[in-house]
Amino acid sequence: MPDPARHAALCGQLRSLIGADSVLTDSADLAPALVDHRKLYQGQALALLLPHDVEAVSRVIGWCNQQRIGVVPQGGNTGYCGGATPDESGDQLVLSLRRLNRIRAVDAENFSMTAEAGCILANVQQAADHADRFFPLSLGSEGSCQIGGNLATNAGGLNVVRYGMTRDLVLGIEAVLPDGQILSNLKSLRKDNTGYNLKSLLVGSEGTLGVITAATLKLWPRMRSSATAFIAITEPAAAIALLARLRATTGESLSSFELIPRIGIDLTTRYIDGVSDPFAQRYAWYLLCELTSAGSEPLQDHLQQLLADAAERSEVLDAALATSERVRAAFWKLRETIPEAQRHFGPSLKHDVSVPVASLPRFIHEASEWVREHVPDGVLVCYGHAGDGNLHFNVNRAEGAPSEPFLARESQIKRAIHDLIARYDGSFSAEHGIGRFKREELQRYASPAALSAMRAIKHALDPNGIMNPGKLL
Amino acid sequence: MPDPARHAALCGQLRSLIGADSVLTDSADLAPALVDHRKLYQGQALALLLPHDVEAVSRVIGWCNQQRIGVVPQGGNTGYCGGATPDESGDQLVLSLRRLNRIRAVDAENFSMTAEAGCILANVQQAADHADRFFPLSLGSEGSCQIGGNLATNAGGLNVVRYGMTRDLVLGIEAVLPDGQILSNLKSLRKDNTGYNLKSLLVGSEGTLGVITAATLKLWPRMRSSATAFIAITEPAAAIALLARLRATTGESLSSFELIPRIGIDLTTRYIDGVSDPFAQRYAWYLLCELTSAGSEPLQDHLQQLLADAAERSEVLDAALATSERVRAAFWKLRETIPEAQRHFGPSLKHDVSVPVASLPRFIHEASEWVREHVPDGVLVCYGHAGDGNLHFNVNRAEGAPSEPFLARESQIKRAIHDLIARYDGSFSAEHGIGRFKREELQRYASPAALSAMRAIKHALDPNGIMNPGKLL
Repeated sequence: MPDPARHAALCGQLRSLIGADSVLTDSADLAPALVDHRKLYQGQALALLLPHDVEAVSRVIGWCNQQRIGVVPQGGNTGYCGGATPDESGDQLVLSLRRLNRIRAVDAENFSMTAEAGCILANVQQAADHADRFFPLSLGSEGSCQIGGNLATNAGGLNVVRYGMTRDLVLGIEAVLPDGQILSNLKSLRKDNTGYNLKSLLVGSEGTLGVITAATLKLWPRMRSSATAFIAITEPAAAIALLARLRATTGESLSSFELIPRIGIDLTTRYIDGVSDPFAQRYAWYLLCELTSAGSEPLQDHLQQLLADAAERSEVLDAALATSERVRAAFWKLRETIPEAQRHFGPSLKHDVSVPVASLPRFIHEASEWVREHVPDGVLVCYGHAGDGNLHFNVNRAEGAPSEPFLARESQIKRAIHDLIARYDGSFSAEHGIGRFKREELQRYASPAALSAMRAIKHALDPNGIMNPGKLL
Repeated sequence: MPDPARHAALCGQLRSLIGADSVLTDSADLAPALVDHRKLYQGQALALLLPHDVEAVSRVIGWCNQQRIGVVPQGGNTGYCGGATPDESGDQLVLSLRRLNRIRAVDAENFSMTAEAGCILANVQQAADHADRFFPLSLGSEGSCQIGGNLATNAGGLNVVRYGMTRDLVLGIEAVLPDGQILSNLKSLRKDNTGYNLKSLLVGSEGTLGVITAATLKLWPRMRSSATAFIAITEPAAAIALLARLRATTGESLSSFELIPRIGIDLTTRYIDGVSDPFAQRYAWYLLCELTSAGSEPLQDHLQQLLADAAERSEVLDAALATSERVRAAFWKLRETIPEAQRHFGPSLKHDVSVPVASLPRFIHEASEWVREHVPDGVLVCYGHAGDGNLHFNVNRAEGAPSEPFLARESQIKRAIHDLIARYDGSFSAEHGIGRFKREELQRYASPAALSAMRAIKHALDPNGIMNPGKLL
């Protein structure tokens, strides 16, 4: 923390740069911005900046570059890896994008919209819906996360199996580079081969190469029919067989394919109001699967037929089709409240991993065996987006076991799981990114060639290291 | 050209580095590699290198980096912008990837395959097909272009409206960086948020940031049903209305949507054997539209119904559905032989532009007016991938007009069309890239912020400027 006189001088300069109402220094104002969603990190900051527009962001970043002051961009502050939290020094600035919250344009005919970074994801979805269009990014925190944060972290979520990650949903971006220059490339083009793909580089760079201030996003036709099923299966291998068959027979209509273990039902029915087991009988594994279409195909019939065929082959043990929006919502509530139920159950060690889809069953088997053998005071809660090979491989403290010795083994458990992931050519961070939480993992598992290329790019674009210092690299 | 003694010494070193059979210096061997597909550039080279594997590529690049010798990677040599042709100095090396032509793996269950850079695109498609899968990249030169070149230039083609550009089809890449390091990231993951997206940066960098030696590609289920129609419309605006309706009612099954002007039919029926006009009557504009699905939807019925509805609204004047594979092939032959027919007709000035899809009709109108008014000795042949806003806006020399004065106006005509494109927030290079042909255009139309970021990245990864010098930037 700089001495009070210097602190006052810096804040004075910032006020004259972007307006007094955009520079908060009161500790009550700052407090929520200084801690991350999972409460892993508690930081300090010179000030919380709330610029009104991209020009103000540009002035701040340019000034920070001259002053060599670190800037931490922050959206809805819902990240899982501490990527939006300042360090403990008190020398950094938090730059909130929340006032850049306009939907600048929705172009239904062009299937595109331009939204500023501070727009809440749910509002982006709604704006598309009002134009009879669909924006497919969907995740648990969509009521509070911001599209700028989704872009900075290349968020995944529930519809990746069909639409890809956030990066795949972007046509153009506007960003402030580390020297304060505004990169304005909000073109809504489907094809544009004019030089290096800066857009894809900035998306997912977690604020370390610049601040994304707006983006032009792809839209789809509004979905008009859907079919949702909760399915009981014997084991994960049955999920992968069913997935291939769904992909091969339902065209592109498969939009979600979530794997849920029995404990997911045990925990949500125990801790979350209004969640109930869709089946009378207990099974080992479940799938939540959804088909949607902008057309009028009889998706329900397709899905029912396919599940009946799978049942004959004993791949499917039981299945419930959502016959109303109420039932559909209940299925999704079960899936989406697993993280909350886990928190009620007690502390957990989270691993956001992915493997090639076809290897998922083998990985789950081997990793589960390891946990059973080596973590007697832990219980595995492994669920996730099986359609794209992404598992939230979490280990909760077993009921009644003491927390301290369990949590003390975090790094040992993480090492074993991530080493196994490396053997499967998988990823130790499928959708949550690196932030501060997984920096060491990146250094450990990324190849020397990849690391040196990343460092060279970081140094080239941000020679003074002002953009989100201490994150990602 | 270095003096003969130095030339011999350099080639000797190369031979000891990668084997005598991999270093060609005979002028007959070199000749085809020294000129581009469109014969815009005639270069010279120290030698043509034909390494057998990625390790040999790595040794060559590392050596070139030490010696400060420029390397020009070359695939099928079918590019339109001279990006794979060495300069006139004779000081550069041409590095052909054609011996790296193995399909390393096809993983049907994981919907992925790994192919080396030198694989012919048609062979990649075939390998997918043999595994009951589909690789959607498809373009006119697929019988001779190589997947490495498709990756380096982020090729577009006929199915972008549904599957995106080449960049969107890649899960992982292997590349040799300018210092000779091998970046080996052939993971077949759908989700992987571990650092900067080097893959998307290298794809489309046209060999200026490294040499792509292999890639893991996304596959889709094999398509089992299709519906193809040749459609006559009054004007481009009807195409865009029809496109929105197709997208909104046929789910994701629309895979091609090509716009063809009357002259496209006149030229192909005149110059190409076996092409005939699908209709008895002449119309101003046509669409070639194709739906495909891995499922068993009655696509023909859908399309027929939709076209009947559009005919009632007078958006469609006439339509012919392909009732057999033979008819379908005839429709596609008409579309795909337009460039060849244009060559028979005479010299042409080509512009590979894109605009936001919804702006296409207005752009075509305004640009056509300009050509009519300002190029009396030219005739417009404007066709292309309307579904993604990409037009090949070509101006042919009018029949009987002298070539020289027409061709002498190339830069003036280009300037007018590209200036207009800029006013439409479009792209002066939608799918063909920059190469050598459009370097000045990039300098002119890219923003200072984008250019300085691109230069910084180039300098950071290739400080000695050995990778494809004089291209792109």
